[in-house]
Amino acid sequence: MRNHGGDWRSYTEQYGQLPLDFSANISPLGTPQQVRKAALRALDRIDCYPDPYCRDLCDAIASALHIPPDWCLCGNGAADLLFRIALAVKPNTALIPVPTFSEYEAALQTVDCAVTHYALSERDDFVLSERFVAQITPEIDLVVLCSPNNPTGLTIPPERMRRIIERCRETSTLLVVDACFQEFLDDPEAHSLIPQLADNPHLLVIKAFTKLYAIPGLRLGYCLSANPALLERIHDMGQPWAVSVAAQEAGIAALKETEYVQNVRRIVREQREWLYSQLCALGLRVIPGEANYLLFQSRAGLAEALKKHGILIRCCADYAGLDETWYRTAVRTEEENTRLLTALREVIG
Amino acid sequence: MRNHGGDWRSYTEQYGQLPLDFSANISPLGTPQQVRKAALRALDRIDCYPDPYCRDLCDAIASALHIPPDWCLCGNGAADLLFRIALAVKPNTALIPVPTFSEYEAALQTVDCAVTHYALSERDDFVLSERFVAQITPEIDLVVLCSPNNPTGLTIPPERMRRIIERCRETSTLLVVDACFQEFLDDPEAHSLIPQLADNPHLLVIKAFTKLYAIPGLRLGYCLSANPALLERIHDMGQPWAVSVAAQEAGIAALKETEYVQNVRRIVREQREWLYSQLCALGLRVIPGEANYLLFQSRAGLAEALKKHGILIRCCADYAGLDETWYRTAVRTEEENTRLLTALREVIG
Repeated sequence: MRNHGGDWRSYTEQYGQLPLDFSANISPLGTPQQVRKAALRALDRIDCYPDPYCRDLCDAIASALHIPPDWCLCGNGAADLLFRIALAVKPNTALIPVPTFSEYEAALQTVDCAVTHYALSERDDFVLSERFVAQITPEIDLVVLCSPNNPTGLTIPPERMRRIIERCRETSTLLVVDACFQEFLDDPEAHSLIPQLADNPHLLVIKAFTKLYAIPGLRLGYCLSANPALLERIHDMGQPWAVSVAAQEAGIAALKETEYVQNVRRIVREQREWLYSQLCALGLRVIPGEANYLLFQSRAGLAEALKKHGILIRCCADYAGLDETWYRTAVRTEEENTRLLTALREVIG
Repeated sequence: MRNHGGDWRSYTEQYGQLPLDFSANISPLGTPQQVRKAALRALDRIDCYPDPYCRDLCDAIASALHIPPDWCLCGNGAADLLFRIALAVKPNTALIPVPTFSEYEAALQTVDCAVTHYALSERDDFVLSERFVAQITPEIDLVVLCSPNNPTGLTIPPERMRRIIERCRETSTLLVVDACFQEFLDDPEAHSLIPQLADNPHLLVIKAFTKLYAIPGLRLGYCLSANPALLERIHDMGQPWAVSVAAQEAGIAALKETEYVQNVRRIVREQREWLYSQLCALGLRVIPGEANYLLFQSRAGLAEALKKHGILIRCCADYAGLDETWYRTAVRTEEENTRLLTALREVIG
């Protein structure tokens, strides 16, 4: 079993109560009411199988993103799609910049793929530099990028991303970009890869409802590609009914929540800037993340110490390229961030 | 995309209303109120990740079945587990009696397994005979059995099942038994494989909440084995958070529904016997199924004709070993079965 944030269950077993959870990067505003209501209504139909094609949801996504519906494939959370993609493609070799989300490698290992790590330099704040482009060779079947990256929160600049897409086309490499945290950026449009899809059938973009609309317990993600045959193959790598009726209805409702998304973006921006400055003021090294979480360095044992204050943060010791001095914290509401900072001051001070 | 029952969505697109659905084998009594309520309550926590281990649910299942909790692994429906099992085991060769549920082969094909069909004889009503035991040779890595079988509704007699389990031990063959419809039998205890688990770590039993508690839209299944290391490996073949919080809570509530299950069993027995006799009286060949569905033979085009009467049944043309003259119908309530029979009389008569 891989280690992940959001493990309130283990905490509860040990401490007998729910933690204040900064270890999962979920929208600080919680599930929008209309999304929850849509899920509730859908429970009236749990005696029917879900539509295996998620037709209504794909139509809604396609309409929101101005793409054809057959460029969209939904999954039981974005992580479900990672495993299906690995199985559909069965790459012999893959290249992954690290540190990053561990499920990419876990998924590729299920098909015995030889995964090469490209080490992002700690000295350079883990920025993906131009040097990476030359690492993509015809021997690489698959590249997985995460932008904004988990756990650093850093994006790949649009121009660099375009060169990577171009390079992958030249080398016949499938490029999977996990953009699950993109909507938390100050300017998501600047990083959108949707305009790139049409000319790049070797590009797969993964997105999630989970984080932005705070529905990780419901499970909903999707991937986009201008290669419908590939998407169908990915779909067929698992059971037909992966996405529950509740998740499908919640997703359709979520796409209407444009005001909620703007509010999330505003709060995340304000609170991230404030939390960043406060963490720096504590003498911590903080990576200037752009999304709804921050990576910082402190002493070993910090996460355990914060647990005694009722707070979960993500110790990053199990990320390739990081060690037990690195931590990731979500950016949450002002009140919650204040509680985190108060606890941190006690623990560090 | 594979063809399956329960595709109300395609029907609705064509006919503009929901069908009376006999094409999916779901409990005729619908979702128990307490199960639905548990799912509703769980939606208060959809802003938290599900417990990836499903600890509370596994404890509840283990307690109900009198087994250790680490003999149980939950999945996003039983079908989710089939694909994870295929990936965890990566068998080179598998043996499957047909006709049967097509997802076994679909799952095995994802890992390029060579699947051999063992043809159940139409002349013998598709009974799995003693001859099958000798077909299990050391060259076979995996055997998948479905009991009661989908679509025939026939069980493998307990003595024969024991010999198959024994034979698989001798040949070092993993035996997967899909028992998803077992609880609909008149005497499920007689067919339970739980007493066999302890001495047979090569035995994997798959069960579902989906059918018995009428929650296919929510997705919940599990598999049982006395080999916890194998179960952990199966778990690791997919994303950590496959089972939603709503499904986990619904499952815990469902295990308390003993009276509901008895009612389902009684109605299914009564209605199956009646529906069987009525279908025979229509001059149809009906396989004497033991669960909550019946396989019968009629003329080609019957399913399409019934659609015009607002009724879905499952045409079995895509089952290996069957053709377009075979149909599967669920056993539902007296009122619903009467509507089916009325429509059938009009269409056939």
